[in-house]
Amino acid sequence: MDKSFKINSRLGKLNILILFLILFTGFIEVKAQSDDEKMLKAIYDTSLLNGKSYKWLDHLSNQIGGRLSGSYNAEKAVKYTKDELEELGLDKVWLQPVMVPKWVRGAKEFAYIESAPGNTTTVPICALGGSVATPAGGLKAEVVEVQNFDELATLGREKIQGKIVFYNRPMQADLIQTFRAYGGCVDQRYKGAEKAIQYGAVGVLVRSVNLRLDDLPHTGSMSYGDTPVSKRIPAAAISTNGAELLSSMLKLDPTTQFFFAQHCKQLKDVESYNVIGEIRGSTYPNKIMVVGGHLDSWDLGDGAHDDGAGVVQSMEVLRLFKETGYKPKHTIRVVLFMNEENGLRGGKKYAKVAKEKGENHVFALESDAGGFTPRGFSFDCSQENFKKVESWRKLFKPYLIHFFEKGGSGADIGPLKGDNVLCGLRPDSQRYFDHHHAANDTFEHVNKRELELGAATMTSLVYLFDKYEVIQSKKLEK
Amino acid sequence: MDKSFKINSRLGKLNILILFLILFTGFIEVKAQSDDEKMLKAIYDTSLLNGKSYKWLDHLSNQIGGRLSGSYNAEKAVKYTKDELEELGLDKVWLQPVMVPKWVRGAKEFAYIESAPGNTTTVPICALGGSVATPAGGLKAEVVEVQNFDELATLGREKIQGKIVFYNRPMQADLIQTFRAYGGCVDQRYKGAEKAIQYGAVGVLVRSVNLRLDDLPHTGSMSYGDTPVSKRIPAAAISTNGAELLSSMLKLDPTTQFFFAQHCKQLKDVESYNVIGEIRGSTYPNKIMVVGGHLDSWDLGDGAHDDGAGVVQSMEVLRLFKETGYKPKHTIRVVLFMNEENGLRGGKKYAKVAKEKGENHVFALESDAGGFTPRGFSFDCSQENFKKVESWRKLFKPYLIHFFEKGGSGADIGPLKGDNVLCGLRPDSQRYFDHHHAANDTFEHVNKRELELGAATMTSLVYLFDKYEVIQSKKLEK
Repeated sequence: MDKSFKINSRLGKLNILILFLILFTGFIEVKAQSDDEKMLKAIYDTSLLNGKSYKWLDHLSNQIGGRLSGSYNAEKAVKYTKDELEELGLDKVWLQPVMVPKWVRGAKEFAYIESAPGNTTTVPICALGGSVATPAGGLKAEVVEVQNFDELATLGREKIQGKIVFYNRPMQADLIQTFRAYGGCVDQRYKGAEKAIQYGAVGVLVRSVNLRLDDLPHTGSMSYGDTPVSKRIPAAAISTNGAELLSSMLKLDPTTQFFFAQHCKQLKDVESYNVIGEIRGSTYPNKIMVVGGHLDSWDLGDGAHDDGAGVVQSMEVLRLFKETGYKPKHTIRVVLFMNEENGLRGGKKYAKVAKEKGENHVFALESDAGGFTPRGFSFDCSQENFKKVESWRKLFKPYLIHFFEKGGSGADIGPLKGDNVLCGLRPDSQRYFDHHHAANDTFEHVNKRELELGAATMTSLVYLFDKYEVIQSKKLEK
Repeated sequence: MDKSFKINSRLGKLNILILFLILFTGFIEVKAQSDDEKMLKAIYDTSLLNGKSYKWLDHLSNQIGGRLSGSYNAEKAVKYTKDELEELGLDKVWLQPVMVPKWVRGAKEFAYIESAPGNTTTVPICALGGSVATPAGGLKAEVVEVQNFDELATLGREKIQGKIVFYNRPMQADLIQTFRAYGGCVDQRYKGAEKAIQYGAVGVLVRSVNLRLDDLPHTGSMSYGDTPVSKRIPAAAISTNGAELLSSMLKLDPTTQFFFAQHCKQLKDVESYNVIGEIRGSTYPNKIMVVGGHLDSWDLGDGAHDDGAGVVQSMEVLRLFKETGYKPKHTIRVVLFMNEENGLRGGKKYAKVAKEKGENHVFALESDAGGFTPRGFSFDCSQENFKKVESWRKLFKPYLIHFFEKGGSGADIGPLKGDNVLCGLRPDSQRYFDHHHAANDTFEHVNKRELELGAATMTSLVYLFDKYEVIQSKKLEK
């Protein structure tokens, strides 16, 4: 009997044990996966065959319309969504008061390029949110085109004093993720006036943050920083085609003048609300998972993509749990934030109250990137939690959800950052800036299936984090 | 000196060799990958910043329009694309003659539901491609609604004779990949008339193959099989809203009648062309890699998505090689196939000629699923070649291309199947059937960036297969 047999025999016993363990854990894994597969299928099927998100969005867009903070439409949206959440039979639905800025656009803006006295071409503009009005009769001045703040500084007061500064840096078309291209130019819109004031400019014109060449001006928030009210100058966005035209005409004749009139006004803050509803957790009622979007929108379109889509998708997450009969272990809370666009007051208020109450928010998911085909999520969380996410990849694959990256989450849930998982839905972004903050952000540009797929994708992630739980490492270390 | 030292020492020498090999191959891999990364970046940048696909599509859609086989527009499209390919400075551009069917729609169709004499509701219909006309004054009959051919057989001649068969099985909304939902109902359109004739039906009405509820009828090809000309009955598509309405009215009153008039006609075959251009391969001029789409389209819209997009993306592949200065090792050939929609004569002819000439087609890529954001490719190839593809996943990741699956390729390149790689571009499919074969398949529904991303994604795959070569296993075995 040679030695090798003995070894083989010993290995044999060991192998049987190992084999058994492999088979057993394999079985558990297959079993669990199969339950999850079934649950995701139920979620997607319900959203696509019996969804409510599109109907809600239709009402929000077509019966209410643009919902700028402090407006009558925003009030109507608060009432409508509260009523609809109450219809779902949640454990609790309430309004959280929050003071919001009230900026009004007033009469439609008007602008033209004047190449010679009497020789004018009208171009589409809109006031930036937060801007002051022009003098009542409008404002006419020569124009200085710049690409960035450095160029502005180089030109200096001598070249800028008394003129309109025209920021014309386009979005970078070679960036695949269009939000990066947005990030690369939005400083012109947000801080352009504050900077130009320092050199004596009388007005600011910003190329619309839009990748496409078209005739729609895109509004958005701007800030004067610490500039005293008396020194503020009017700021407007010009359509991309308008920007191209103005730039060409300035090249031909640098003394070309620009006229614009806008009648916007910042009024006193008014009271508004975050709309909140929740399903109480069966196991961890004090651990909260938030899903949300923002209820306010800009006023030019009806805010269907930004962020009506996120609102109705977030509401749909709770409805899909109800419809599929899933009882979450954690408290699942939908928060429809007020005033994301021009103040973030709702997001800040929600986090403040949560802190005061000592609430434990283990998870928050925001949808605020349009109602387009979902591609995945971006995560702001620990490596341990991200590893969990990566283990779920195969569950999402049948739904063509492939994008799981670490990175930002969302503006409204940002203030909840702590020992938790924050994440943002990431839909296809190629068309988003064609509509963003413009008059064509309307219901007919949202595809029903794409919206529903987004809602199902969000629900699936919340389900998985509810079932397998967020790791709160700092808590464990204590 | 114990034994273990000697072993360790020997292992030591071995380890150094292994380490060296690992480092060396690692170096080569890093180097190669970095070149590929650069090339893909150059391809995407050129397509997005300096692309020509959108301009070509504008002309094809807005200056030419719908390009049904045998039509004057199809002729114009042949001439235009040939001229444009010649502008690119390819090594050879030519037309390949092919006889195609010529079916004409004639005057616009007209239809109504008649619930009682004189009580009519008009509904949108269109003749199916290949259908015969109704009698000159139209056709009126009672309607039998069915979901499938089994139901038709169960009803039998007794219930069907003298009536219009209304196929109303909708696309399955819970299927994530909408082409699967298409595959699940297109039999009604293609074979519906042939089947209904067997039971004495006088006409056929098919629910438009569209996931959305709207007012557009969607045409598409149909066949009478071996049915003699004298026995053929007219077949039309009804809009999804129209189908819902008709179905409701039939439930209220099964004797509801339907009237329709259509004036279409099948004429004699005419000569048309596949448009072909190529860059001769530097190393393997006799190994051919094809990239293509189909030049013909239906007549209701301008065929921008189906398949103007595929045509201009395929042309752009060769232009992007030229622009980036890449010299392919293989012969890269663009083929703009004629008559995919109602005959596939172009695809069959191309493959027939290739066979006769003994050409070696190692690779073919088709784009015929719309100009939407590309998600990846579907492959019809050996496991060895698919493994190559999988090794390129990371190269595509920055461009959000994640979908690489084995499966079908495309109708026009199908006849080239052999010891090669066939594949199809797979764009986002959620909106595709909203436009497919309908009057809203038009240029304004194609997004410039999405189209350009598709062209770059195709070019990248062709580049990688050109550089790393297709494995023709059967050849090697010989």
